[in-house]
Amino acid sequence: MVSQLDPGDPIDPHRFPLRDWSIVETRYDDSDLGTSESVFAVGNGYLGMRANPEEGRDAHVHGTFVNGFHETWQIQHAEAAYGFAQTGQTIVNAPDTKLMKLYVDDEPLTLSTADILDYERELDFRAGLLRRKVLWRTPSGKRVEVISTRMVSFTDRHLAVMTMQVTVLDGDAPVVISSQILNRQDGRDEYYVPDDALGAGFDPRKASTFDHRVLIPDPDPFVRPHRMILGYRCANSRMTLAVGADHVMETDNPVEELQDVEPDLGKKIFRVRASAGVPITLTKAVAYHSSRGVPVRELYDRCRRTLDRFREAGIDETHAAQRAWLDAYWERTDVVIEGQPRIQQATRWCLYQLAQAAARADQLGIAAKGVTGSGYEGHAFWDTEVYVIPFLTYTNPTMARNALRYRINLLDAARRRARDLAHRGALFPWRTINGEEASAYYAAGTAQFHINADIAYAFMTYADITGDRELLYRDGADVIVETARMWADLGFWRINSGESFHIHGVTGPDEYTTVVNNNLFTNVMARFNLRSAVDLMREMQREAPERYDQLVARLHLEEGEVTEWEACAEHLHIPYDETFNIHPQDDHFLECEAWDVAATPADKFPLLLHYHPLVIYRYQVLKQADVVLALFLRGEEFTAEDKRANFEYYDPITTGDSTLSAVVQSIIAAEVGYSDLALEYFRLGLLVDLADLHRNTSDGLHIASTGGVWNCLVFGFIGMRQSHGRLRFDPRLPRGWDGLEAPLQIQGRHLRVRVTQDQITVSMLSGEPLEIEIRGTSYTVTESEPVQVALDGQGPRLEWTGTTSGVGEAREDGTLLTAGYPDPDRPWQAGGLEAARKHCAQLEPPAAAGLS
Amino acid sequence: MVSQLDPGDPIDPHRFPLRDWSIVETRYDDSDLGTSESVFAVGNGYLGMRANPEEGRDAHVHGTFVNGFHETWQIQHAEAAYGFAQTGQTIVNAPDTKLMKLYVDDEPLTLSTADILDYERELDFRAGLLRRKVLWRTPSGKRVEVISTRMVSFTDRHLAVMTMQVTVLDGDAPVVISSQILNRQDGRDEYYVPDDALGAGFDPRKASTFDHRVLIPDPDPFVRPHRMILGYRCANSRMTLAVGADHVMETDNPVEELQDVEPDLGKKIFRVRASAGVPITLTKAVAYHSSRGVPVRELYDRCRRTLDRFREAGIDETHAAQRAWLDAYWERTDVVIEGQPRIQQATRWCLYQLAQAAARADQLGIAAKGVTGSGYEGHAFWDTEVYVIPFLTYTNPTMARNALRYRINLLDAARRRARDLAHRGALFPWRTINGEEASAYYAAGTAQFHINADIAYAFMTYADITGDRELLYRDGADVIVETARMWADLGFWRINSGESFHIHGVTGPDEYTTVVNNNLFTNVMARFNLRSAVDLMREMQREAPERYDQLVARLHLEEGEVTEWEACAEHLHIPYDETFNIHPQDDHFLECEAWDVAATPADKFPLLLHYHPLVIYRYQVLKQADVVLALFLRGEEFTAEDKRANFEYYDPITTGDSTLSAVVQSIIAAEVGYSDLALEYFRLGLLVDLADLHRNTSDGLHIASTGGVWNCLVFGFIGMRQSHGRLRFDPRLPRGWDGLEAPLQIQGRHLRVRVTQDQITVSMLSGEPLEIEIRGTSYTVTESEPVQVALDGQGPRLEWTGTTSGVGEAREDGTLLTAGYPDPDRPWQAGGLEAARKHCAQLEPPAAAGLS
Repeated sequence: MVSQLDPGDPIDPHRFPLRDWSIVETRYDDSDLGTSESVFAVGNGYLGMRANPEEGRDAHVHGTFVNGFHETWQIQHAEAAYGFAQTGQTIVNAPDTKLMKLYVDDEPLTLSTADILDYERELDFRAGLLRRKVLWRTPSGKRVEVISTRMVSFTDRHLAVMTMQVTVLDGDAPVVISSQILNRQDGRDEYYVPDDALGAGFDPRKASTFDHRVLIPDPDPFVRPHRMILGYRCANSRMTLAVGADHVMETDNPVEELQDVEPDLGKKIFRVRASAGVPITLTKAVAYHSSRGVPVRELYDRCRRTLDRFREAGIDETHAAQRAWLDAYWERTDVVIEGQPRIQQATRWCLYQLAQAAARADQLGIAAKGVTGSGYEGHAFWDTEVYVIPFLTYTNPTMARNALRYRINLLDAARRRARDLAHRGALFPWRTINGEEASAYYAAGTAQFHINADIAYAFMTYADITGDRELLYRDGADVIVETARMWADLGFWRINSGESFHIHGVTGPDEYTTVVNNNLFTNVMARFNLRSAVDLMREMQREAPERYDQLVARLHLEEGEVTEWEACAEHLHIPYDETFNIHPQDDHFLECEAWDVAATPADKFPLLLHYHPLVIYRYQVLKQADVVLALFLRGEEFTAEDKRANFEYYDPITTGDSTLSAVVQSIIAAEVGYSDLALEYFRLGLLVDLADLHRNTSDGLHIASTGGVWNCLVFGFIGMRQSHGRLRFDPRLPRGWDGLEAPLQIQGRHLRVRVTQDQITVSMLSGEPLEIEIRGTSYTVTESEPVQVALDGQGPRLEWTGTTSGVGEAREDGTLLTAGYPDPDRPWQAGGLEAARKHCAQLEPPAAAGLS
Repeated sequence: MVSQLDPGDPIDPHRFPLRDWSIVETRYDDSDLGTSESVFAVGNGYLGMRANPEEGRDAHVHGTFVNGFHETWQIQHAEAAYGFAQTGQTIVNAPDTKLMKLYVDDEPLTLSTADILDYERELDFRAGLLRRKVLWRTPSGKRVEVISTRMVSFTDRHLAVMTMQVTVLDGDAPVVISSQILNRQDGRDEYYVPDDALGAGFDPRKASTFDHRVLIPDPDPFVRPHRMILGYRCANSRMTLAVGADHVMETDNPVEELQDVEPDLGKKIFRVRASAGVPITLTKAVAYHSSRGVPVRELYDRCRRTLDRFREAGIDETHAAQRAWLDAYWERTDVVIEGQPRIQQATRWCLYQLAQAAARADQLGIAAKGVTGSGYEGHAFWDTEVYVIPFLTYTNPTMARNALRYRINLLDAARRRARDLAHRGALFPWRTINGEEASAYYAAGTAQFHINADIAYAFMTYADITGDRELLYRDGADVIVETARMWADLGFWRINSGESFHIHGVTGPDEYTTVVNNNLFTNVMARFNLRSAVDLMREMQREAPERYDQLVARLHLEEGEVTEWEACAEHLHIPYDETFNIHPQDDHFLECEAWDVAATPADKFPLLLHYHPLVIYRYQVLKQADVVLALFLRGEEFTAEDKRANFEYYDPITTGDSTLSAVVQSIIAAEVGYSDLALEYFRLGLLVDLADLHRNTSDGLHIASTGGVWNCLVFGFIGMRQSHGRLRFDPRLPRGWDGLEAPLQIQGRHLRVRVTQDQITVSMLSGEPLEIEIRGTSYTVTESEPVQVALDGQGPRLEWTGTTSGVGEAREDGTLLTAGYPDPDRPWQAGGLEAARKHCAQLEPPAAAGLS
């Protein structure tokens, strides 16, 4: 499924027409239900509902997810070893309240087989509603109009509201609506995992299925005439959940109401003798409350309060509150892309998904899939800190703060995990819901120690940009100190042509080499972590001595620890290769054989699904940007020449098999001057889910990638960077774009930045004057005086001829820039974009074509 | 349980007294049943029975194993990836025929609670019998003498024979003997695996349990008055098994016989009205036949033939045949250690175990535990090729040939496995029964590509020593070619200061570092494999052109392949470090932090049970000899200085956490001149099972280690080496040993070599004259003229002061030999022996003490 982006785009524009503030589907198509269920899902970060039709039936997964509501299970290792993760955690598919089954003349509406005269489904980014309008000709020939809406409230995180309006247009007919709460989490038919899970069908990115009954129902649900509340407890995790529903029926037709509530199925049935043209309107408000251990009966009370509040407010006020919330969100968040309506539409879809993933996640964390699916078991990873929290920090700082508090709450578990690995301090789990390490494959999991530094990076960026030092001083410092301690303990001193501090046996973001020594990204980020700890301790000693003393006592901070971190950071080994003038991805990366991407058939991508890890690990080939990500996150530590040389070396061997790659490749391509390449990678990031580029959007959306899209726009094309809270701009507007404008919040100030081909304008909407830097010159922007600077072009324009013929051919004015692979008999034949294109080529051919 | 080795040995000499040709237990003790069941087990390589008492009851495991008879199951990976092993294989505990339950006055004999007046159990290495004599005072005060024997036939691999003679000494009494065939494989009580299999209780070296019924019984067993045969089929593997038993009762007492046969339990019951002093003698012959797929009914016929043969021969003739077979075995095999009776006894026990593991394994392979237990799931590994087959080659070449044919039979599966890993040629599985890779942890499993070269090494050694080129020319060449092809494909050419061929991403024998580049052992052995292929192709072209042409056609041997292998071998990168003048274990081993063995508490050994792999892999610390093993197997490629420098570097960081380590450390210690250390390591190897040094003898004996004991004696102390079938001797007799004598077979000749402190004598018992080399001088030994050479000492005598204070202190004449770890502030504090001692220290304290 692809939202058309280019005028020449061969994707059916009739099914997905252009809109400014919504995504619209004009034809029902069950060939890609999994994708469309994710793309049209509604959620608020706490509660998420996949875009299954109201009638149930055909679905990839009937999914409803409550953030953090998970089951645990004992991980069975085929061959165990000491310290392997023990507690599996899987997000639970919560009871389904979306169901409102419709029968006319006793015939059920089933979209896949019905005679549908007209169909439109729209996810409205400003109203915060999923709307559907269906014109159905029943088997007896009557036309029935069915208009429904669905929303998950941004203002009341526990509330979702659905409406259905049914009108029989021709003649009278008996109409039945059976509105349900259905616990279908144990229904295996929806979670089909092929028997040959280890053969062709396996995919480690999917969620596992349970082999036990997960949700143990309360045998005594709460039932009142217009209300039912069902309760459950997870068998192992002991988490509790209550799900309630209220119904309001409005019609001038005669109605008979029935109710039938069992522990796994609550039904409210309306039997209507409908007259032609007389509408039947059903409003269904539902509430979800979950807890780590509060008894179900107490959650019933909470559901009642949520439902009572809705009953007082009514549907209109609720819809209005939703719109008001979103008006404010867009005010803080919308990025305007002038003259690119299709890119604009796709970008807004991404920004909307970030609200749906983060708005009310509150302190429960933001999972890789948000609340749109059970992919990756509902776990949160490092990419939230690197791609999502920075976006939130600049636009919605309260959400960023909440997301950081999630990590604070997991600190004790991270301390325990460090002990498991014989380390001091804290080691955050590679993937988790509840704070325990759930990665069953340590080489590409636990070994990614860099998550510690990524978390520290998010804390420091948040504090620098928002100016909220209080969070740091009170709780964040504990995270910074404990993560720094882990680094100081993990590394070791080598005395070999001078003292240096080395970190061995780790895996960087690129999972196509694992358990290596001195991974560049890891070391650069660890250095930042250590220095941040040093600086923060000195700052607190100076600025908040009382809090500092408390911290020293609380963390048993010892004499000399701070200077030890300083020494570790100072002497941290940063691998550098004199032949290529680049940073090797790790100490020995350049000694490895080059993977011949050009000779790799398109159907072998992604490599991880077609080659044994031992094969992949042996080569110079990347799943995702690694050194290049360090060039972005810690750009101030690298020169422009460094960046270009490294980008040129790594880009051709980056497959982009991870969705996290394209956006970073875009940002650095833009910075170093490969403008067209930057735009192509941006598009690949933009379309990850809208075009299902990685063929697993059905498992849920790639939230970090949607965050990456914002990163591309602001850091890549607007060319913004920050250091210690000070903003710098060096724009890189793509060719053909008229303008790009984004709002930003800096230390309580509200700014807008607009870049055109000719100039950059930074305006202060509110706040104290701010000093900024544009292409090396300082300016002060005030409420009364925007800064407007003329641009002489958009940075260097390099011509990348290496996209298909490889390293060794990146030229500027015809000059060979890099030497490429040292064996002249085995030149590299392909570049990263080539790989990415191959990656797409095996997908729907139109989708791939749509990108070029 | 320890067989006392030293006069001052604190181990109870009354329980395990000294014997020349047996191991004897004089007191029943149920505190170490698991160990004694393994140590007193009987078997012939095809059929094995643990030393459970005839009465059943108290046992660690009631175990009966048929070589290769296994169940398969789908390996469930906690997180799967492409190419991971899919088919688990586990040796099946076959129905138990050892049971002969005894009741006197209706009271059962149960050793653990009975009033035992006298007890002796003896495993007789010459008779090939397990004998037991028990004098029991029944609860009613009668003394009953129970004498039983058990043997598994070396001459008829399917046959086992048991006898029981019961005599009531005081008064008359009803005596019942219930002799059984009991299928107890599904009895979970015997295979207890703690629920917290991933917590403290986990041990990857144990077998897994099944969660399904494995043996599906034939509902219609074969039953005749004195015979019963039961049949089974494995649920998944479809392998079939028939188990039959004949009974002969001889007594002057009145007897009533009953028989009761069900699919899982066959009982033959003898009710005897016994008079005082009148013996009751029961003979039970049992037959086991298994197949990959032959119907059970056909196996019944095979069992009948086996049992009929025994019936014709009778017990005396059968016992005599067993003794005759063993007389011949000892003639070929016995190593005489003069003046060291305890070491002699333990050595003979080891050599006897090699017969029990290999004699009739025929072409089924020799598993790590032989047929003594289900440890390592009954899998065969590389250590058979490295430690067992060479022993067989020099002493029992037919057994060696059979063991090699097992690999020939698995070649097709190895070809498929190579394809799974995207390689040409063949890749033998790291652990297997049926030829499919069963290693679920690739880092320490599949990544051990060196198994390919180890197998090639065993083939070439066999062919060189036996002169049996026919095996090579007919089938062995296929193995040599296909393994060489894998190496040529696995490695790659690096053009960096000259062309060289590199092998990345492999694990050597030392599993404490994994997935490394250019592991020294792997590269040295791969080079041997490649060169062997080159030499063999040229030899066949010359000596057997017709067979060569067939091979070229069969293997599609291409023009240029042989020269490619030659080039790969010629340029294979052999890492060498100029600072220490040693070979790094892999390209980057020396860059790693040193593990402080001295600071590691004794209860943290073996490290693998107390540290996450990521922790262990990060350090310079060894589970077992790796470079040092290469120094032994390919000694001719290293100088004496090389060997000493490498041994001195690696020994202090070798924990000996693997049972395979001590024997190799002993051999090289002897060669380089650390004589006392060599003897200490030899003892550690000798006692692996007798003293349960690794605390898992209960899972089965460590067969490779028993082979290693022979290696120590012949290669270590006699100082023999061979190259292309030519023998060299440079003895290293330990201080205090009067002499050491071993028989050897070389190219059809029978030799005896005897070393004393003063001379070496090589005698030719039969065969053509042979040129040998003693300390650099050539001699010809003939039937009429032994070679006798006076010895001036036993090689260099170095003083190893480094055993407790580490590298940097190995001295000869007070001279510092190695520089040790480069950081003077962090000197190594402990040596390998120290680690090995710590390893033992946490075991039964007397066992450890017994070693010093």
